[in-house]
Amino acid sequence: MKKALSLILAAAGLLALPALALAEDVPTSEVAYVLNTFSFLVNGVLVMWMAAGFGMLESGLVRTKNVATICLKNIALFGVAGILFYLVGYNLMYAGVDGGFMGTFGLWGPDDAAAAGGDFSAGYAASSDWFFQMVFCGAACSVVSGCVAERIKLWGFIAFCVIMTGIIYPIQGSWGWGGGWLSEMGFLDFAGSTLVHSAGGWAALTGAIILGARKGKYAADGRVTPIPGSNMPLATLGTFILWMGWFGFNGGSVLALGTAGDSISMSNVMANTNLAACGGMIAAMILLQILYKKVDLTMALNGALAGLVSITAGPDTPTPGVAVLIGGVGGILVVLAVPLFDKLKIDDVVGALSVHLVCGIWGTLAVPLTNDEASFVTQLIGVASIGGFVVVTSALTWLLIKYTVGLRVSEEEEHRGCDTTELGLEAYPEFGRGSQGLR
Amino acid sequence: MKKALSLILAAAGLLALPALALAEDVPTSEVAYVLNTFSFLVNGVLVMWMAAGFGMLESGLVRTKNVATICLKNIALFGVAGILFYLVGYNLMYAGVDGGFMGTFGLWGPDDAAAAGGDFSAGYAASSDWFFQMVFCGAACSVVSGCVAERIKLWGFIAFCVIMTGIIYPIQGSWGWGGGWLSEMGFLDFAGSTLVHSAGGWAALTGAIILGARKGKYAADGRVTPIPGSNMPLATLGTFILWMGWFGFNGGSVLALGTAGDSISMSNVMANTNLAACGGMIAAMILLQILYKKVDLTMALNGALAGLVSITAGPDTPTPGVAVLIGGVGGILVVLAVPLFDKLKIDDVVGALSVHLVCGIWGTLAVPLTNDEASFVTQLIGVASIGGFVVVTSALTWLLIKYTVGLRVSEEEEHRGCDTTELGLEAYPEFGRGSQGLR
Amino acid sequence: MKKALSLILAAAGLLALPALALAEDVPTSEVAYVLNTFSFLVNGVLVMWMAAGFGMLESGLVRTKNVATICLKNIALFGVAGILFYLVGYNLMYAGVDGGFMGTFGLWGPDDAAAAGGDFSAGYAASSDWFFQMVFCGAACSVVSGCVAERIKLWGFIAFCVIMTGIIYPIQGSWGWGGGWLSEMGFLDFAGSTLVHSAGGWAALTGAIILGARKGKYAADGRVTPIPGSNMPLATLGTFILWMGWFGFNGGSVLALGTAGDSISMSNVMANTNLAACGGMIAAMILLQILYKKVDLTMALNGALAGLVSITAGPDTPTPGVAVLIGGVGGILVVLAVPLFDKLKIDDVVGALSVHLVCGIWGTLAVPLTNDEASFVTQLIGVASIGGFVVVTSALTWLLIKYTVGLRVSEEEEHRGCDTTELGLEAYPEFGRGSQGLR
Repeated sequence: MKKALSLILAAAGLLALPALALAEDVPTSEVAYVLNTFSFLVNGVLVMWMAAGFGMLESGLVRTKNVATICLKNIALFGVAGILFYLVGYNLMYAGVDGGFMGTFGLWGPDDAAAAGGDFSAGYAASSDWFFQMVFCGAACSVVSGCVAERIKLWGFIAFCVIMTGIIYPIQGSWGWGGGWLSEMGFLDFAGSTLVHSAGGWAALTGAIILGARKGKYAADGRVTPIPGSNMPLATLGTFILWMGWFGFNGGSVLALGTAGDSISMSNVMANTNLAACGGMIAAMILLQILYKKVDLTMALNGALAGLVSITAGPDTPTPGVAVLIGGVGGILVVLAVPLFDKLKIDDVVGALSVHLVCGIWGTLAVPLTNDEASFVTQLIGVASIGGFVVVTSALTWLLIKYTVGLRVSEEEEHRGCDTTELGLEAYPEFGRGSQGLR
Repeated sequence: MKKALSLILAAAGLLALPALALAEDVPTSEVAYVLNTFSFLVNGVLVMWMAAGFGMLESGLVRTKNVATICLKNIALFGVAGILFYLVGYNLMYAGVDGGFMGTFGLWGPDDAAAAGGDFSAGYAASSDWFFQMVFCGAACSVVSGCVAERIKLWGFIAFCVIMTGIIYPIQGSWGWGGGWLSEMGFLDFAGSTLVHSAGGWAALTGAIILGARKGKYAADGRVTPIPGSNMPLATLGTFILWMGWFGFNGGSVLALGTAGDSISMSNVMANTNLAACGGMIAAMILLQILYKKVDLTMALNGALAGLVSITAGPDTPTPGVAVLIGGVGGILVVLAVPLFDKLKIDDVVGALSVHLVCGIWGTLAVPLTNDEASFVTQLIGVASIGGFVVVTSALTWLLIKYTVGLRVSEEEEHRGCDTTELGLEAYPEFGRGSQGLR
Repeated sequence: MKKALSLILAAAGLLALPALALAEDVPTSEVAYVLNTFSFLVNGVLVMWMAAGFGMLESGLVRTKNVATICLKNIALFGVAGILFYLVGYNLMYAGVDGGFMGTFGLWGPDDAAAAGGDFSAGYAASSDWFFQMVFCGAACSVVSGCVAERIKLWGFIAFCVIMTGIIYPIQGSWGWGGGWLSEMGFLDFAGSTLVHSAGGWAALTGAIILGARKGKYAADGRVTPIPGSNMPLATLGTFILWMGWFGFNGGSVLALGTAGDSISMSNVMANTNLAACGGMIAAMILLQILYKKVDLTMALNGALAGLVSITAGPDTPTPGVAVLIGGVGGILVVLAVPLFDKLKIDDVVGALSVHLVCGIWGTLAVPLTNDEASFVTQLIGVASIGGFVVVTSALTWLLIKYTVGLRVSEEEEHRGCDTTELGLEAYPEFGRGSQGLR
């Protein structure tokens, strides 16, 4: 279980952080039970809030004619994740994995009988754990929506979300956090650089390739037409929301708050999470100034997110300075990766591949730098196996949808925008057309 | 007191959730006191945040010419609620109700002398309780603002808020949560489907009727002119905020976090709250696709809110699947109710009546489905008596304001918009006029 | 240390609030350690969120041509604060101040060895304390950005943030919260009316004077041209975010949650914080109606913020009614101060001086009204000495930047807007030009 993994990680953290030797006998008292549970709930609410962050970021980065649609996709995917993680996902990820490749099929339901009988060894209320894991499932799916925006059909996207949140995410998640084969090998991914971010990134990559680029993005002669986002404060707000939510994402992944050691670990994780975000943003800004003599806001925002994704695999073990550097490398990677994907004519509307896939891989491979329990080879096996699994299963899913429900809107619909054609409304019906208004 | 009610509800929950038999002797230790208090504060902050959610939702759903005004109304009503709940509301709702119809008149002030003397039987700090109850009072008033938008005078609306937060809400609240006659009868409303949402809804209904519809909404020949909202991402953001805040709204209404049982209850409540929101949104989306072949974003958002309102009367007892269904029925109700109110020529700008009134009633009546302690007849008596009380008192208040301060802006002002005429500014002074810009 | 100060303040609070006599022997148990730590983390996340609040408020109050730039500045300054407070700030503010004028230079790093050995007397995890203090450092810098908006160079502003967050803020902070000379004198500033808000305000004032006003703001004949903000719901959202975050700002400044007394204090602080915000906003609205016959939304928002700043120096000791009044005076001050700064031709784009400087001073001087431990003379010495220090050091910094990196954009750049000239993009590229669009 992720809990066991966390204890290993915490133990490893003691080696990297100075001179900690926390008591081995973790209390299983009622107070610890309440605190563990409340940590899941509070941190889980922060992660839920990231769904809004993705929604606002993506709303700010698409064109006005597709804004309402991306809003709907972002809130709908969170609804799908909640239901599917109840119907299938949770048990597939956590029930009876036992070193294997997946759990069992079956509805999730809370069972707190032991605690009710005075035995608090489960450590936390069952529903608080479900809640915390469910919002992670939603986050993996949120990574996808921005990348494939502005040309995917609403119901085609939702069909993908059903498979992603019910099957693909839980199965690969079981390998690392459900006690599956990867965790047995010693693969370490504290809060999901690989299991959430690069998993979402791989699914987005196959989607972007199978869908193809937006009309007009790549000219036959190789030129790339920039398509500016329509609302910069919304994109900034989304980034702030994600940054805030990430404290719950990483901090809550300590998975416990019942001892002083847990609280120290959570504090170190939150401080490092912030430092990595700072490092990613500042590094991206400096590199942008050097390369382009201008600091593109959207790239700076992606730099912060890159730092956050990069630290997520191991926020517990780095010293503060190393956390800045891990994030900083992420910020540099994202600035370099965005034009690279354009060169490959992979049309990623919001830069999700550069942020979540590239930095998710970097962050996972960086864990051994500060954590003696991690092995580079095992981390690489984890990255590759999950990448392979998600690429194959998501590609099959996208293709299945393409030839049944349908995946891409018509050229006419794409030109007019998904808002009027799929939703029958406009995101900003009263605002006129500005310099980019004729696109 | 609401506390007593919650214990009954929790007890009832044990019957519906599998095999829980929590210890009867609740600790009254200092740790429990701190945890209970901190729960009120953290969850209260989340509920306070819902005021912003209503503000953004309504800002997104009115026309640009009234956006600044609705912003001001939303933040002003929260300010009024804070002051009035201190001046009158809290004691009217909670002090000496004793099975009766209202508490006492008088300023609220914290008294923690017992705790200071080492007696922690009060269970929590007085101010934390006031804070948590005050934000609920604000929420009831927020329900009203959207419904009567785009034609009500600023100071007329504020005058109504004074009476609503100081008198109407607290008196009916005392019946259910202050230990009044309804709670003695066994009326169950965990977090306020009736006491907050339908109470606000009834007040909004009388307001909408007395104010009349916006000019141009209903033609003489029966045709209804849709008036699209001006900013869809704002409406989406507002919904996300409300969804997030609802975890505090329902989760905090466990009213305690001092025992494992409390934390289990809070976890079940939060999980069910999320599942009901998912159910409401997905059900609404499917029904919209079937009925209209398009998924209107604003209706999907209202579907999520409908699910949230529906589960609010009893989020502690349903199993996860039943929570999805209770929310799902709410989502269906809202899709059917919106055109119905239009048929009745009741002009509800944001769909607040369909969401908060209709689903508030549904959620209250649904409690006996999963809670053996609840009786359908008692629930019906609660719904009807509070409906009757709020309709009469709010109608009198609206009429009093109409014939003193004045309630409705002039036709000329309505045409030009409240922002320039009442506030002397524009919400978006630099944005031009688009397809709906000439309205 | 701020902790010691807080105990004094809490003790003082007992005199003003009715009949509290909390146990003197504060527990240093593991549970208290966890709760203290978790309070820092949860409240710290709320304060971090205020960075987004400032960002949205300022984005809403500048013109569209400078919106993306102000977004970037707001998120960049938070990144700078995080790194600088690690590199220099924390130790300069808290390490070895000992009644003096500053701490030591050196990297910060967490040391939790004592707790790991079972000695919980430190009271909380080191990183949680760093996290909570770091977000305050960011907030001080956020005060500056809005005031100097629309004409300052991006990198000039960032250079200032480096000095502000690394040197100026920590040194003056050490006087009050690091155990420096002001705290030895008995200066009381619970959560930073002076140490955060007026410190930021003084830095903003020198910046605004050295930069000069925006072109076209002040005519030679003394007339002031109002320059309306471009997005009112964003400004409202920013205010709601700040209001929400302020519960963490003030509530977390109790600095402990390990005892019933701590939780009572935190509850009183949060209730008073809310009441002061309500008082400030309602007082501002009434005064606006009287003076101008219209309620300007931006002024009402500033009224709420004024109430919040005013209560921040002493939110623990007032009774609820006095909290409303302290905030209410703040709301009146802000309405009167804004035109005053215009008369002085000090161009403050968002009203930051009126809110943070004027009300920061007012709030600090108001502490003796409810707190017998505070002395008016000492408070005045604190206000004046910190004012003097920040004015001198920030003026030197602004001038140094002016003659090196450069401080103000060219007239041509100012006319075209910083977004296209400094960032190479538009905040709202697809929205046309409205009534104010030709500015």
